[in-house]
Amino acid sequence: MPSIAFLECSRCHAHLDPSTPQTVCTQCPDSPAGTLYVRYDLSAAQGLEARNKIGAIDPSRPSPGMWRYQSVLPEVPPVTLAEGWTPMLLSRRNPNVFLKEEGANPTGTFKARGMSMAMSMIRHYGIRKIAVPSAGNAGGAAAAYAAAAGIEAHIFMPKDVPLANQVECLSYGANMTLVDGLISDCARIVNERKQAEGWFDLSTLKEPFRVEGKKTMGYELVEQSGWTYPDAVFYPTGGGVGLIGMWKAFEEMEQLGWVAKNNGNGWRRPKMIAVQAAGCAPVARAYDAGESASQMWQNAHTFAAGLRVPKPYGDYIILDAVRQSRGTVVALSDEAIFQSLRDWASNEGIFLSPEGAASTAAYDHLIATGFLKPSERVVLFNTGSGNKYTDVIGHALGLTHA
Amino acid sequence: MPSIAFLECSRCHAHLDPSTPQTVCTQCPDSPAGTLYVRYDLSAAQGLEARNKIGAIDPSRPSPGMWRYQSVLPEVPPVTLAEGWTPMLLSRRNPNVFLKEEGANPTGTFKARGMSMAMSMIRHYGIRKIAVPSAGNAGGAAAAYAAAAGIEAHIFMPKDVPLANQVECLSYGANMTLVDGLISDCARIVNERKQAEGWFDLSTLKEPFRVEGKKTMGYELVEQSGWTYPDAVFYPTGGGVGLIGMWKAFEEMEQLGWVAKNNGNGWRRPKMIAVQAAGCAPVARAYDAGESASQMWQNAHTFAAGLRVPKPYGDYIILDAVRQSRGTVVALSDEAIFQSLRDWASNEGIFLSPEGAASTAAYDHLIATGFLKPSERVVLFNTGSGNKYTDVIGHALGLTHA
Ligand SMILES: [Zn+2]
Ligand SMILES: [Zn+2]
Repeated sequence: MPSIAFLECSRCHAHLDPSTPQTVCTQCPDSPAGTLYVRYDLSAAQGLEARNKIGAIDPSRPSPGMWRYQSVLPEVPPVTLAEGWTPMLLSRRNPNVFLKEEGANPTGTFKARGMSMAMSMIRHYGIRKIAVPSAGNAGGAAAAYAAAAGIEAHIFMPKDVPLANQVECLSYGANMTLVDGLISDCARIVNERKQAEGWFDLSTLKEPFRVEGKKTMGYELVEQSGWTYPDAVFYPTGGGVGLIGMWKAFEEMEQLGWVAKNNGNGWRRPKMIAVQAAGCAPVARAYDAGESASQMWQNAHTFAAGLRVPKPYGDYIILDAVRQSRGTVVALSDEAIFQSLRDWASNEGIFLSPEGAASTAAYDHLIATGFLKPSERVVLFNTGSGNKYTDVIGHALGLTHA
Repeated sequence: MPSIAFLECSRCHAHLDPSTPQTVCTQCPDSPAGTLYVRYDLSAAQGLEARNKIGAIDPSRPSPGMWRYQSVLPEVPPVTLAEGWTPMLLSRRNPNVFLKEEGANPTGTFKARGMSMAMSMIRHYGIRKIAVPSAGNAGGAAAAYAAAAGIEAHIFMPKDVPLANQVECLSYGANMTLVDGLISDCARIVNERKQAEGWFDLSTLKEPFRVEGKKTMGYELVEQSGWTYPDAVFYPTGGGVGLIGMWKAFEEMEQLGWVAKNNGNGWRRPKMIAVQAAGCAPVARAYDAGESASQMWQNAHTFAAGLRVPKPYGDYIILDAVRQSRGTVVALSDEAIFQSLRDWASNEGIFLSPEGAASTAAYDHLIATGFLKPSERVVLFNTGSGNKYTDVIGHALGLTHA
């Protein structure tokens, strides 16, 4: 594992000291302050020989999960529940469509990756209490990893999050507050109370390590594609940290020489497709308007709870990555999302989360518009298991409780 | 992959022809007819060289899951959703306690293994319609794999199964019937209607291949223990097919020379601990009475839905394996199970199914009684994710729907 050289601001590129806990950039001339990236001396991981060591798994550690990439992650004892190294499933109907099944993670969603990494650092720094505002699944994952690390957790979620998120928070022994509002209201409450309560704020992109854990999705999708880039990656975008993490992973892999060049001139990164719900589409609106950041979305509503983020903190990074990659941002109606959910369940045997079904619906949409060709190889992210949305999907199917 | 030599009756040891679909033994002199085991010529898999090939995963197949054991599984194209090769988690509080996390499977339970194998054979035989009576999770898994294989599925479940099982069956496009009764009533209905409807009956142990898929749990727990046996294996026992499958795997691994001998005299298999709920404990009662089969349990009730099996078809095999292994059968109250569920969630960060929490509660119980020593290395099976029991566990926690 490499030691951290410094933390770098994503806006002003200032360097911050990683030896004490950091939140966002303290040097940015303008507001909001930039989110911080972890930077390492990666010389020991350089080249194909180092890359090929990843697969040589120590048999005494049967479940390394995302920690197979320890050579590009901070040198700390992991707080792990065997997150990551999730299946890459080939569609039965389309040989160019792969589904990255993040529902196989502990807590049933990709949020486990970020929380495993962040909680490892929380414990490393000796922090005792954390707070996190969440649209649902991050709260459940924070509660799980806090329990595993022996950290006190305070979770703030909208009162209409799926029942699964409430049940898991309580089961894991977290302090749960249900808020009459959105994740933005939860974030405000955490911000107001954290100093008096002594909470470390684990809000999305307001500390450097959740994105660092989620970058492993980028390593995995490339390794599971034979160390090549697919033509496009579809990512359901609420806070968008997964997309941001993957973009960082691509940059690192190119520096390390781990990803094959697609043509004589250099690497061609996948088109990044950020997927939102029509009822909460701040990034799609900003993209269409040619803006570099989003505006707060009013009256956000969608049954894809993880997409109810009215203004993602990392909007400027998402928009930049989408444009650099010649991707796009699409917003789907709840009807289109639910139809795709049923399509994948009944025709592929895969029970997607509503957010994951936004990915699959977006793929169909971009094939229909001609933005993508059917011959292009794509990876669609299912960010969580449909099992975490039993009440929501059951309601949509007309089922009631016994 | 080996070809199947024959199917062998577990009671009368008659050999049956595997080239056509078989159900249970047609040669048994007494009723009930014996369940059938798949037997192969395994000479190509003999020895350590063959064993060591298992880990050499083809990089073009990133998610082989349980099909890493293809050298001891039938030679058919798999219907796979990347089931198996689940994490083996080390308890944070006890270095001799490992948890086999089957909640990471597709559909969130170990049932995926049996259905992947069975549905592969269903497709191989050209069967078009299946029916299955289920306590819940087998129904969901059957619906998923039927969807993946393009097979028509008819699922019969008690009307009070967890909501998740109903939602997944409908989402996968299965024909679902909720029955005012138990799995035994569902089985009766399937039995009465199957001939007229042209359904192949996928009931537990009434065809040879679900147990064949579940045997991979035995291979995995031994491989993930460095190709050695633990001292004891705790298995939540409703139908008990997982335990039966593991016992078959141990026999095969010994014949293949894949498992290390524990002493100079031969292999010492783990003590098999069959775990039931006090409200439905037919196997525990038969074990205590020294009987070789169980009697139908009246008025079965427990919140661990998967344990509500009033008379398992393979009771005679379970009881024999438990006794041969010098294990035992224990039955826990719902209160003890729920307490252990909360204990593991809040102290380990692992959200068990009620059935899995029966395993952990049983471990505590057998340590308290002195049946096991704390120094013995044990593997506790969590057969499914707590996320599939959101309504049941939420109710126990006093949560209601928004
Ligand atoms: Zn800055
Ligand atoms: Zn027989």
